[in-house]
Amino acid sequence: MKQTDMEKRILSILVDNTSGVLTRIAGLFARRGYNIDSITAGVTADPRFTRITIVTSGDELVLEQIKNQVQKQVDVRDVKILDAEASVIRELVLLKLRVSEEQRDKVLAVANIFRAKIVDVGPKSMIIELTGSQSKLEAFLELTKEYETLELARTGITALSRGMEDVTYLD
Amino acid sequence: MKQTDMEKRILSILVDNTSGVLTRIAGLFARRGYNIDSITAGVTADPRFTRITIVTSGDELVLEQIKNQVQKQVDVRDVKILDAEASVIRELVLLKLRVSEEQRDKVLAVANIFRAKIVDVGPKSMIIELTGSQSKLEAFLELTKEYETLELARTGITALSRGMEDVTYLD
Repeated sequence: MKQTDMEKRILSILVDNTSGVLTRIAGLFARRGYNIDSITAGVTADPRFTRITIVTSGDELVLEQIKNQVQKQVDVRDVKILDAEASVIRELVLLKLRVSEEQRDKVLAVANIFRAKIVDVGPKSMIIELTGSQSKLEAFLELTKEYETLELARTGITALSRGMEDVTYLD
Repeated sequence: MKQTDMEKRILSILVDNTSGVLTRIAGLFARRGYNIDSITAGVTADPRFTRITIVTSGDELVLEQIKNQVQKQVDVRDVKILDAEASVIRELVLLKLRVSEEQRDKVLAVANIFRAKIVDVGPKSMIIELTGSQSKLEAFLELTKEYETLELARTGITALSRGMEDVTYLD
Protein backbone atom coordinates (compact mmCIF):
# COMPACT_ATOMS: atom_id res chain seq x y z
CA MET A 1 0.00 0.00 0.00
CA LYS A 2 2.89 2.37 -0.63
CA GLN A 3 2.19 5.69 -2.28
CA THR A 4 4.68 6.10 -5.07
CA ASP A 5 5.04 8.25 -8.13
CA MET A 6 4.96 5.18 -10.37
CA GLU A 7 2.12 5.01 -12.79
CA LYS A 8 -1.02 3.84 -11.04
CA ARG A 9 -3.15 1.14 -12.57
CA ILE A 10 -6.80 0.84 -11.67
CA LEU A 11 -8.68 -2.44 -11.87
CA SER A 12 -12.45 -2.31 -11.67
CA ILE A 13 -13.81 -5.77 -10.84
CA LEU A 14 -17.46 -6.75 -10.69
CA VAL A 15 -18.07 -9.82 -8.54
CA ASP A 16 -20.89 -11.82 -7.03
CA ASN A 17 -21.69 -10.53 -3.58
CA THR A 18 -20.42 -13.60 -1.74
CA SER A 19 -18.45 -14.15 1.41
CA GLY A 20 -14.71 -14.48 0.90
CA VAL A 21 -14.55 -13.14 -2.65
CA LEU A 22 -12.65 -10.02 -1.55
CA THR A 23 -10.06 -12.11 0.25
CA ARG A 24 -9.61 -14.40 -2.71
CA ILE A 25 -9.11 -11.51 -5.14
CA ALA A 26 -6.65 -9.76 -2.81
CA GLY A 27 -4.86 -13.10 -2.38
CA LEU A 28 -4.20 -13.36 -6.12
CA PHE A 29 -2.24 -10.12 -5.93
CA ALA A 30 -0.35 -11.12 -2.80
CA ARG A 31 0.73 -14.48 -4.23
CA ARG A 32 2.29 -12.69 -7.20
CA GLY A 33 4.08 -10.29 -4.88
CA TYR A 34 2.02 -7.54 -6.46
CA ASN A 35 1.43 -4.74 -3.98
CA ILE A 36 -2.09 -3.30 -3.61
CA ASP A 37 -1.95 0.47 -3.15
CA SER A 38 -5.59 0.61 -2.20
CA ILE A 39 -8.70 -1.49 -2.34
CA THR A 40 -12.29 -0.37 -2.06
CA ALA A 41 -15.40 -2.47 -2.33
CA GLY A 42 -19.10 -1.84 -2.14
CA VAL A 43 -22.34 -3.39 -3.21
CA THR A 44 -23.71 -2.09 -6.53
CA ALA A 45 -27.22 -0.88 -7.38
CA ASP A 46 -28.02 -4.55 -7.97
CA PRO A 47 -27.43 -6.14 -4.53
CA ARG A 48 -26.29 -9.40 -6.14
CA PHE A 49 -23.04 -7.73 -7.20
CA THR A 50 -20.15 -5.91 -5.58
CA ARG A 51 -17.66 -3.66 -7.35
CA ILE A 52 -14.06 -3.91 -6.18
CA THR A 53 -11.63 -1.19 -7.21
CA ILE A 54 -7.96 -2.02 -6.81
CA VAL A 55 -5.15 0.46 -7.39
CA THR A 56 -1.71 -0.91 -7.95
CA SER A 57 1.52 0.34 -9.41
CA GLY A 58 3.74 -2.01 -11.23
CA ASP A 59 4.62 -3.95 -14.31
CA GLU A 60 1.99 -3.94 -17.05
CA LEU A 61 2.67 -7.50 -18.15
CA VAL A 62 2.22 -8.93 -14.66
CA LEU A 63 -0.98 -6.90 -14.28
CA GLU A 64 -2.31 -8.42 -17.49
CA GLN A 65 -1.56 -11.87 -16.05
CA ILE A 66 -3.34 -11.04 -12.79
CA LYS A 67 -6.29 -9.67 -14.73
CA ASN A 68 -6.54 -13.00 -16.57
CA GLN A 69 -6.39 -14.93 -13.29
CA VAL A 70 -9.04 -12.70 -11.71
CA GLN A 71 -11.26 -13.21 -14.73
CA LYS A 72 -11.11 -16.98 -14.25
CA GLN A 73 -12.60 -16.86 -10.74
CA VAL A 74 -16.14 -18.27 -10.71
CA ASP A 75 -17.67 -15.30 -8.92
CA VAL A 76 -16.02 -12.65 -11.11
CA ARG A 77 -18.40 -11.14 -13.68
CA ASP A 78 -16.25 -8.47 -15.27
CA VAL A 79 -12.72 -7.06 -15.02
CA LYS A 80 -11.63 -3.77 -16.55
CA ILE A 81 -8.32 -1.94 -16.44
CA LEU A 82 -9.50 1.67 -16.32
CA ASP A 83 -7.88 4.33 -18.45
CA ALA A 84 -7.08 7.13 -15.98
CA GLU A 85 -7.62 9.82 -18.64
CA ALA A 86 -11.13 8.57 -19.44
CA SER A 87 -12.25 7.91 -15.88
CA VAL A 88 -13.59 9.75 -12.86
CA ILE A 89 -11.23 8.85 -9.99
CA ARG A 90 -12.12 9.84 -6.44
CA GLU A 91 -11.01 9.25 -2.89
CA LEU A 92 -12.31 10.39 0.49
CA VAL A 93 -10.07 11.37 3.37
CA LEU A 94 -10.85 12.12 7.01
CA LEU A 95 -8.13 14.10 8.77
CA LYS A 96 -8.04 14.79 12.50
CA LEU A 97 -5.73 17.70 13.32
CA ARG A 98 -4.64 19.15 16.64
CA VAL A 99 -6.12 22.66 16.36
CA SER A 100 -6.32 25.20 19.16
CA GLU A 101 -9.17 27.71 19.38
CA GLU A 102 -6.85 30.42 18.05
CA GLN A 103 -5.89 28.33 15.01
CA ARG A 104 -9.43 27.39 13.97
CA ASP A 105 -10.05 30.28 11.57
CA LYS A 106 -6.83 29.60 9.74
CA VAL A 107 -7.69 25.92 9.28
CA LEU A 108 -11.21 26.86 8.16
CA ALA A 109 -9.77 29.15 5.48
CA VAL A 110 -7.64 26.33 4.04
CA ALA A 111 -10.62 23.95 4.20
CA ASN A 112 -12.77 26.44 2.29
CA ILE A 113 -10.26 26.75 -0.54
CA PHE A 114 -10.45 22.99 -1.04
CA ARG A 115 -14.21 22.86 -0.42
CA ALA A 116 -13.49 20.51 2.45
CA LYS A 117 -16.07 20.03 5.20
CA ILE A 118 -15.47 20.40 8.92
CA VAL A 119 -17.27 17.39 10.38
CA ASP A 120 -16.15 17.59 14.02
CA VAL A 121 -14.75 20.28 16.28
CA GLY A 122 -13.42 19.57 19.75
CA PRO A 123 -11.65 21.88 22.23
CA LYS A 124 -8.27 20.87 20.79
CA SER A 125 -9.07 19.03 17.57
CA MET A 126 -10.91 19.18 14.26
CA ILE A 127 -11.94 16.50 11.79
CA ILE A 128 -11.96 17.58 8.15
CA GLU A 129 -13.58 15.61 5.32
CA LEU A 130 -12.28 16.03 1.79
CA THR A 131 -12.96 14.23 -1.47
CA GLY A 132 -11.20 14.56 -4.77
CA SER A 133 -8.49 13.24 -7.01
CA GLN A 134 -5.35 11.96 -5.35
CA SER A 135 -3.40 15.05 -6.40
CA LYS A 136 -6.00 17.31 -4.75
CA LEU A 137 -5.85 15.27 -1.54
CA GLU A 138 -2.06 15.35 -1.55
CA ALA A 139 -2.04 19.13 -2.02
CA PHE A 140 -4.42 19.54 0.89
CA LEU A 141 -2.41 17.23 3.16
CA GLU A 142 0.72 19.19 2.23
CA LEU A 143 -0.92 22.50 3.20
CA THR A 144 -2.13 21.21 6.56
CA LYS A 145 1.28 19.84 7.53
CA GLU A 146 1.89 22.76 9.85
CA TYR A 147 -0.69 21.25 12.18
CA GLU A 148 -0.15 18.00 14.01
CA THR A 149 -2.03 15.12 12.39
CA LEU A 150 -3.67 13.10 15.16
CA GLU A 151 -5.33 10.56 12.90
CA LEU A 152 -5.94 10.09 9.21
CA ALA A 153 -8.25 7.66 7.45
CA ARG A 154 -8.68 7.44 3.70
CA THR A 155 -10.90 5.20 1.65
CA GLY A 156 -8.60 4.47 -1.23
CA ILE A 157 -9.65 5.17 -4.78
CA THR A 158 -12.95 4.36 -6.40
CA ALA A 159 -13.49 5.04 -10.07
CA LEU A 160 -15.86 4.87 -13.02
CA SER A 161 -15.11 5.26 -16.70
CA ARG A 162 -16.68 8.37 -18.26
CA GLY A 163 -19.54 8.15 -20.75
CA MET A 164 -21.29 5.00 -21.81
CA GLU A 165 -18.91 3.09 -24.08
CA ASP A 166 -17.49 0.93 -21.33
CA VAL A 167 -20.70 -0.07 -19.53
CA THR A 168 -21.06 -3.78 -18.79
CA TYR A 169 -24.59 -5.15 -18.81
CA LEU A 170 -25.45 -8.06 -16.58
CA ASP A 171 -28.68 -9.90 -16.47
CA MET B 1 -20.40 -7.77 1.49
CA LYS B 2 -24.17 -7.86 1.88
CA GLN B 3 -25.94 -4.73 3.01
CA THR B 4 -28.21 -5.67 5.86
CA ASP B 5 -30.04 -3.88 8.63
CA MET B 6 -28.05 -5.75 11.26
CA GLU B 7 -25.96 -3.61 13.50
CA LYS B 8 -22.75 -2.65 11.76
CA ARG B 9 -19.46 -2.98 13.55
CA ILE B 10 -16.49 -0.90 12.51
CA LEU B 11 -12.91 -2.00 13.08
CA SER B 12 -10.18 0.57 12.67
CA ILE B 13 -6.83 -1.16 12.26
CA LEU B 14 -3.46 0.54 12.06
CA VAL B 15 -0.83 -1.61 10.34
CA ASP B 16 2.70 -1.41 9.00
CA ASN B 17 2.64 -0.43 5.36
CA THR B 18 3.87 -3.78 4.05
CA SER B 19 2.93 -5.94 1.09
CA GLY B 20 0.34 -8.59 1.85
CA VAL B 21 -0.88 -7.22 5.19
CA LEU B 22 -4.31 -6.38 3.75
CA THR B 23 -4.73 -9.91 2.41
CA ARG B 24 -3.71 -11.44 5.71
CA ILE B 25 -6.16 -9.30 7.71
CA ALA B 26 -9.01 -10.00 5.29
CA GLY B 27 -8.10 -13.69 5.43
CA LEU B 28 -8.62 -13.79 9.21
CA PHE B 29 -12.23 -12.75 8.65
CA ALA B 30 -12.77 -15.20 5.82
CA ARG B 31 -11.42 -18.16 7.77
CA ARG B 32 -13.92 -17.48 10.55
CA GLY B 33 -16.74 -17.23 8.02
CA TYR B 34 -17.14 -13.62 9.06
CA ASN B 35 -18.41 -11.56 6.16
CA ILE B 36 -16.76 -8.22 5.39
CA ASP B 37 -19.36 -5.61 4.40
CA SER B 38 -16.70 -3.21 3.26
CA ILE B 39 -12.99 -2.66 3.54
CA THR B 40 -11.05 0.52 2.90
CA ALA B 41 -7.35 1.09 3.29
CA GLY B 42 -5.02 3.99 2.81
CA VAL B 43 -1.63 5.16 3.90
CA THR B 44 -1.67 7.52 6.93
CA ALA B 45 0.09 10.86 7.40
CA ASP B 46 3.08 8.78 8.46
CA PRO B 47 3.90 6.75 5.32
CA ARG B 48 5.14 3.84 7.45
CA PHE B 49 1.55 3.04 8.42
CA THR B 50 -1.72 2.20 6.73
CA ARG B 51 -5.17 2.45 8.29
CA ILE B 52 -7.61 -0.30 7.36
CA THR B 53 -11.30 0.21 8.13
CA ILE B 54 -13.45 -2.90 8.05
CA VAL B 55 -17.22 -2.88 8.41
CA THR B 56 -18.88 -6.10 9.37
CA SER B 57 -22.21 -7.13 10.80
CA GLY B 58 -22.36 -10.09 13.06
CA ASP B 59 -21.95 -11.63 16.43
CA GLU B 60 -20.14 -9.47 18.99
CA LEU B 61 -18.34 -12.37 20.63
CA VAL B 62 -16.84 -13.62 17.36
CA LEU B 63 -15.80 -10.07 16.51
CA GLU B 64 -13.97 -9.81 19.85
CA GLN B 65 -12.14 -13.04 18.95
CA ILE B 66 -11.19 -11.73 15.52
CA LYS B 67 -10.01 -8.48 17.08
CA ASN B 68 -7.71 -10.47 19.36
CA GLN B 69 -6.36 -12.45 16.42
CA VAL B 70 -5.79 -9.30 14.38
CA GLN B 71 -3.96 -7.75 17.32
CA LYS B 72 -1.52 -10.67 17.41
CA GLN B 73 -0.30 -10.09 13.84
CA VAL B 74 3.27 -8.78 13.80
CA ASP B 75 2.52 -5.84 11.54
CA VAL B 76 -0.61 -4.67 13.39
CA ARG B 77 0.00 -1.63 15.56
CA ASP B 78 -3.46 -0.89 16.89
CA VAL B 79 -7.01 -2.23 16.63
CA LYS B 80 -10.10 -0.35 17.73
CA ILE B 81 -13.78 -1.24 17.54
CA LEU B 82 -15.28 2.18 16.84
CA ASP B 83 -18.38 3.35 18.66
CA ALA B 84 -20.72 4.52 15.87
CA GLU B 85 -22.24 7.22 18.09
CA ALA B 86 -18.85 8.74 18.86
CA SER B 87 -17.38 8.51 15.37
CA VAL B 88 -17.45 10.30 12.04
CA ILE B 89 -18.44 7.69 9.47
CA ARG B 90 -18.25 8.49 5.77
CA GLU B 91 -18.48 6.82 2.41
CA LEU B 92 -18.08 8.04 -1.17
CA VAL B 93 -20.23 6.85 -4.03
CA LEU B 94 -19.96 7.38 -7.80
CA LEU B 95 -23.19 6.77 -9.66
CA LYS B 96 -23.53 6.69 -13.43
CA LEU B 97 -27.14 7.16 -14.55
CA ARG B 98 -28.75 7.04 -17.96
CA VAL B 99 -30.01 10.61 -18.26
CA SER B 100 -31.40 12.20 -21.41
CA GLU B 101 -30.95 15.89 -22.15
CA GLU B 102 -34.53 16.51 -21.07
CA GLN B 103 -34.02 14.79 -17.72
CA ARG B 104 -30.82 16.62 -16.76
CA ASP B 105 -32.43 19.48 -14.84
CA LYS B 106 -34.45 17.11 -12.72
CA VAL B 107 -31.40 15.05 -11.82
CA LEU B 108 -29.49 18.24 -11.04
CA ALA B 109 -32.23 19.32 -8.64
CA VAL B 110 -32.00 16.05 -6.69
CA ALA B 111 -28.20 16.29 -6.67
CA ASN B 112 -28.37 19.81 -5.26
CA ILE B 113 -30.59 18.76 -2.38
CA PHE B 114 -27.96 16.22 -1.34
CA ARG B 115 -25.06 18.55 -2.16
CA ALA B 116 -23.86 15.95 -4.61
CA LYS B 117 -21.47 16.92 -7.41
CA ILE B 118 -21.95 16.26 -11.10
CA VAL B 119 -18.52 15.05 -12.21
CA ASP B 120 -19.28 13.93 -15.77
CA VAL B 121 -22.00 14.65 -18.31
CA GLY B 122 -22.32 12.75 -21.57
CA PRO B 123 -25.02 12.90 -24.25
CA LYS B 124 -26.96 10.12 -22.50
CA SER B 125 -25.33 9.76 -19.10
CA MET B 126 -24.23 11.58 -15.96
CA ILE B 127 -21.81 10.64 -13.19
CA ILE B 128 -22.72 11.95 -9.74
CA GLU B 129 -20.36 12.01 -6.76
CA LEU B 130 -21.80 11.96 -3.26
CA THR B 131 -20.27 11.57 0.18
CA GLY B 132 -21.97 11.10 3.50
CA SER B 133 -23.23 8.65 6.04
CA GLN B 134 -24.62 5.37 4.76
CA SER B 135 -28.20 6.47 5.46
CA LYS B 136 -27.69 9.63 3.37
CA LEU B 137 -26.26 7.59 0.51
CA GLU B 138 -29.12 5.09 0.69
CA ALA B 139 -31.69 7.91 0.63
CA PHE B 140 -30.03 9.38 -2.44
CA LEU B 141 -29.85 6.05 -4.25
CA GLU B 142 -33.53 5.51 -3.43
CA LEU B 143 -34.47 8.88 -4.94
CA THR B 144 -32.52 8.29 -8.15
CA LYS B 145 -34.08 4.87 -8.73
CA GLU B 146 -36.38 6.27 -11.41
CA TYR B 147 -33.32 6.57 -13.63
CA GLU B 148 -31.47 3.56 -14.95
CA THR B 149 -28.23 2.94 -13.05
CA LEU B 150 -25.51 2.17 -15.58
CA GLU B 151 -22.70 1.73 -13.08
CA LEU B 152 -22.13 2.33 -9.40
CA ALA B 153 -18.88 2.34 -7.44
CA ARG B 154 -18.63 3.01 -3.73
CA THR B 155 -15.59 3.14 -1.50
CA GLY B 156 -16.99 1.48 1.57
CA ILE B 157 -16.86 3.21 4.92
CA THR B 158 -13.96 5.03 6.45
CA ALA B 159 -14.23 6.42 9.97
CA LEU B 160 -12.50 8.29 12.78
CA SER B 161 -13.53 8.60 16.41
CA ARG B 162 -14.52 12.13 17.41
CA GLY B 163 -12.39 14.25 19.76
CA MET B 164 -9.03 13.24 21.15
CA GLU B 165 -9.65 10.57 23.78
CA ASP B 166 -9.11 7.67 21.46
CA VAL B 167 -5.97 8.80 19.65
CA THR B 168 -3.19 6.22 19.44
CA TYR B 169 0.33 7.58 19.45
CA LEU B 170 3.05 5.70 17.62
CA ASP B 171 6.70 6.50 17.57
